[in-house]
Amino acid sequence: MFRPQIKVIDCTVRDGGLMNKWQFSDDFVRNVYHALGKAGVDYMEIGYLSSEGMFCRKEMGAWKFCAENDLRRIIGEEEKKIKLTAMADIGRIDYHDIPQKSDSSLDMVRVACYVHQVDKAIDLAEHCLDKGYEATINLMAVSTVNQRDLEEALSDLAKSRVPIIYLVDSFGFFYSEHIDTLAKLYMERLPGKTIGIHCHNNQQLAFANTISAIINGINFLDATLYGIGRGAGNCPLELLISFLKNPKFDVRPLIEVIEKEVLPWSKKIDWGYFIPYMITGALNQHPRAAIAQMESEHKDKITDFYDQATSLPT
Amino acid sequence: MFRPQIKVIDCTVRDGGLMNKWQFSDDFVRNVYHALGKAGVDYMEIGYLSSEGMFCRKEMGAWKFCAENDLRRIIGEEEKKIKLTAMADIGRIDYHDIPQKSDSSLDMVRVACYVHQVDKAIDLAEHCLDKGYEATINLMAVSTVNQRDLEEALSDLAKSRVPIIYLVDSFGFFYSEHIDTLAKLYMERLPGKTIGIHCHNNQQLAFANTISAIINGINFLDATLYGIGRGAGNCPLELLISFLKNPKFDVRPLIEVIEKEVLPWSKKIDWGYFIPYMITGALNQHPRAAIAQMESEHKDKITDFYDQATSLPT
Repeated sequence: MFRPQIKVIDCTVRDGGLMNKWQFSDDFVRNVYHALGKAGVDYMEIGYLSSEGMFCRKEMGAWKFCAENDLRRIIGEEEKKIKLTAMADIGRIDYHDIPQKSDSSLDMVRVACYVHQVDKAIDLAEHCLDKGYEATINLMAVSTVNQRDLEEALSDLAKSRVPIIYLVDSFGFFYSEHIDTLAKLYMERLPGKTIGIHCHNNQQLAFANTISAIINGINFLDATLYGIGRGAGNCPLELLISFLKNPKFDVRPLIEVIEKEVLPWSKKIDWGYFIPYMITGALNQHPRAAIAQMESEHKDKITDFYDQATSLPT
Repeated sequence: MFRPQIKVIDCTVRDGGLMNKWQFSDDFVRNVYHALGKAGVDYMEIGYLSSEGMFCRKEMGAWKFCAENDLRRIIGEEEKKIKLTAMADIGRIDYHDIPQKSDSSLDMVRVACYVHQVDKAIDLAEHCLDKGYEATINLMAVSTVNQRDLEEALSDLAKSRVPIIYLVDSFGFFYSEHIDTLAKLYMERLPGKTIGIHCHNNQQLAFANTISAIINGINFLDATLYGIGRGAGNCPLELLISFLKNPKFDVRPLIEVIEKEVLPWSKKIDWGYFIPYMITGALNQHPRAAIAQMESEHKDKITDFYDQATSLPT
């Protein structure tokens, strides 16, 4: 599949950091940054944009903040190899803590929000646009949003100046038919805008659903090295790059950095296909119970987990 | 997706056994057998049908042979809970070693073949039909077969009496577009026959491609518990059963037997998504080099593996 408009966004540090509280070494982040540049990936999402004091820097690491001096440590003196982006959650970043683009190494801010936060997200994203950044809004957990609320949110987004809107399968619930239907809806209701996709891999469908999205005209594609990410993780970047036929992409630097930096983490933390994640995905539930199970001493007690997940509330 | 013609075939013992030379205990096989029955799965492929002496029973275990007394140990005295099938490879079973159906607990024989073996496969499968079994032909590795040879094979299969023909993605190479195209070709060239699908998971597409197959009218669906199988493994049965909406299916007994029997094996042998398997899948290569890599002491040297897999022959 070769379509010049397609852009690939690596979320290894940002989404992977949800699994280890961003305890990545500077070497890890630097090696990922150089590998992505060599591989022809378009954007690296290097973390979250949070106000200092909102979290403990020692507990959460630098990539929960993405301060300019953090970014400079990674980029070094050379010319930047790849566009950088950071994610902003509503309420965790004060507007006056966002520098002007001319004072920042970030190129883009991606605002994550739930459907009831769309107005706040538009306000924040337009603020970032006004400061000189590219901006997206990533509308999360749409698998639990009813049609009327979704259509209202899309209508608000259509009227905004935000040029890129993401379809996010936060729970890893969607099958390809869902992606077909939603991609068509987003394209129809958001004329002139670019649509993005961010999938989770609870049912081993993150890559397949990203392909379905591409076929439906979605052009901003999120992925992570070896699929690292919250819970079941994301669409594996190496699969996506080997699928896309744009000659600018090269999968080898990704294999190399997976070997050097990601495989060691895969032995310390469990992301990927595990039954608790599969169960919450199939049931269209938030993964928090599955994550708690995987972090507990009884992570293999999957039948008990299934019974709890499917029991009716009393 | 509810379509009464859909049949699900579990290949846990047969394809999973390729990873451990069928060193499953009788308790493992018995617990899988009972769980599949409770879950409403239609067939259990319990191993290979081979002539005694063709392999060493001690080295390969009972399920490389599937002799009647092996089967009886599993079934016990009660009524059979699920149809049983075994796979036959060309040249590894003498015709006179196949009992009449009336003397066997097997219901079906599935004949695996490469495209150049189609005539032999038809002969063997029709022999099994004549002895009273159901029979299928599973045409392997079609991702490396040219169009003319494939059409000739399909033409021969169309003329045969074998009622069920499988599309097999042996190398885990296919994307959903390939499945769409091939499913349509198989349906068109094999009028009146039932088509089956057997996927490998090298690119995390086995489940997604099985869904694509279902959408295209394919009705015999192979899967294994937790995806256990050669190399990257197969379509995970628990995902498939939770996708299919036929009320006869129940995923809970599968979760239970995964906990009891399959998770312990997952700590001893490596099937699933690993970069060497991803590389051979994406390159449309036989997984043997990846399997050798994964069994070696340098299994994490994935960049070397990539360089070897992509180097031109000298």
